[in-house]
Amino acid sequence: MSAAKSEEPTLLEGIEPASVRALMAAGIECFADKGFNATTTRDISARAGFSPAAVYVHFPSKADLLFATSRLGHESALKVLEEAPGDEEDPAHRIELMVAAFAAWHARNNRLARVVQYEGRALPAKHRAEINTVKERFQRCIESELEAGIAAGQLTAPDVPGTALAILSLCIDVARWYSPSRDRSPEQVGALYSELMLRMVGATPA
Amino acid sequence: MSAAKSEEPTLLEGIEPASVRALMAAGIECFADKGFNATTTRDISARAGFSPAAVYVHFPSKADLLFATSRLGHESALKVLEEAPGDEEDPAHRIELMVAAFAAWHARNNRLARVVQYEGRALPAKHRAEINTVKERFQRCIESELEAGIAAGQLTAPDVPGTALAILSLCIDVARWYSPSRDRSPEQVGALYSELMLRMVGATPA
Repeated sequence: MSAAKSEEPTLLEGIEPASVRALMAAGIECFADKGFNATTTRDISARAGFSPAAVYVHFPSKADLLFATSRLGHESALKVLEEAPGDEEDPAHRIELMVAAFAAWHARNNRLARVVQYEGRALPAKHRAEINTVKERFQRCIESELEAGIAAGQLTAPDVPGTALAILSLCIDVARWYSPSRDRSPEQVGALYSELMLRMVGATPA
Repeated sequence: MSAAKSEEPTLLEGIEPASVRALMAAGIECFADKGFNATTTRDISARAGFSPAAVYVHFPSKADLLFATSRLGHESALKVLEEAPGDEEDPAHRIELMVAAFAAWHARNNRLARVVQYEGRALPAKHRAEINTVKERFQRCIESELEAGIAAGQLTAPDVPGTALAILSLCIDVARWYSPSRDRSPEQVGALYSELMLRMVGATPA
């Protein structure tokens, strides 16, 4: 993977075989640098240090590599929300942990997240539909936590679907502005954002 | 401008001559559809209904057309913040109006905003520097309103620069998710977002 410097070592770690991992890492770099449409499969193969047709050994097309990347990104970010720790009896604290982890994820994986969010128009319709199904789960995750918090008397929201969308959106946009040279770590972004979110939904930070 | 359907009629209205206006509208559509790098000057000329070399009559390069578009977008959005109505003696109300207008702008001009935000990496360094100067004014605008609100005892913020960045970011990301087919008008998005922002900075909505 020498030629394909990636900011997402942990996220790609589980991908096997190593050649697929290297191609996905190279794809993220190429798509982030010049966009999906302007990247060729030769660019990706070269960046991974492989021969020109290497992408086709593992993926039917460049769009399939983008889809694999997009699915990986969405599933990893969803896991962060769905597996957030915290007591179900304390939804305000639980949503605080969810948002801290979700915002930090978008800072840490900013290049992957940009590809996933801004190059998605290039996915074929059937793949886009599958990704949209995952996106609905993000929305449901935040909505149900808000509803639980409102029911428990811990939170208030003027409009649950709109507020849930705004919370997700706030965290996703971290990928646009964040760079590792910024004077905030992903964890510091997460801490600030979860505090701002708690204020937004009428809770007081712990 | 027949071939170049644009969602930004008002924004482009002031651009003269009409051929430049048509090329900028066509550029926004092409860049939004397939990205800057994958768009040719011929694509843009064709979309505007002109002969293949038409872009070069008005712009030295495709990057200069992107720069003109990016500057137009940034200046228009900045104007919305800087010229927000409202009493200087009532910073909480003023920032409410600023955020409502800024979020609505990003819904209304979502295709232009996406080009401006996500294709900016293609700008030459000197142009990027000029755009960054404008971006700093967005940040200062919100920061100074927050500071005025805090000084007046109307608002609280855990971290003024971080909170200002989050408020701008929340509004900018509207361009990513908004589509005219959504069940919210730009004005409704503005109203919800200004309410969420006021909660975030410890004010109560009017």
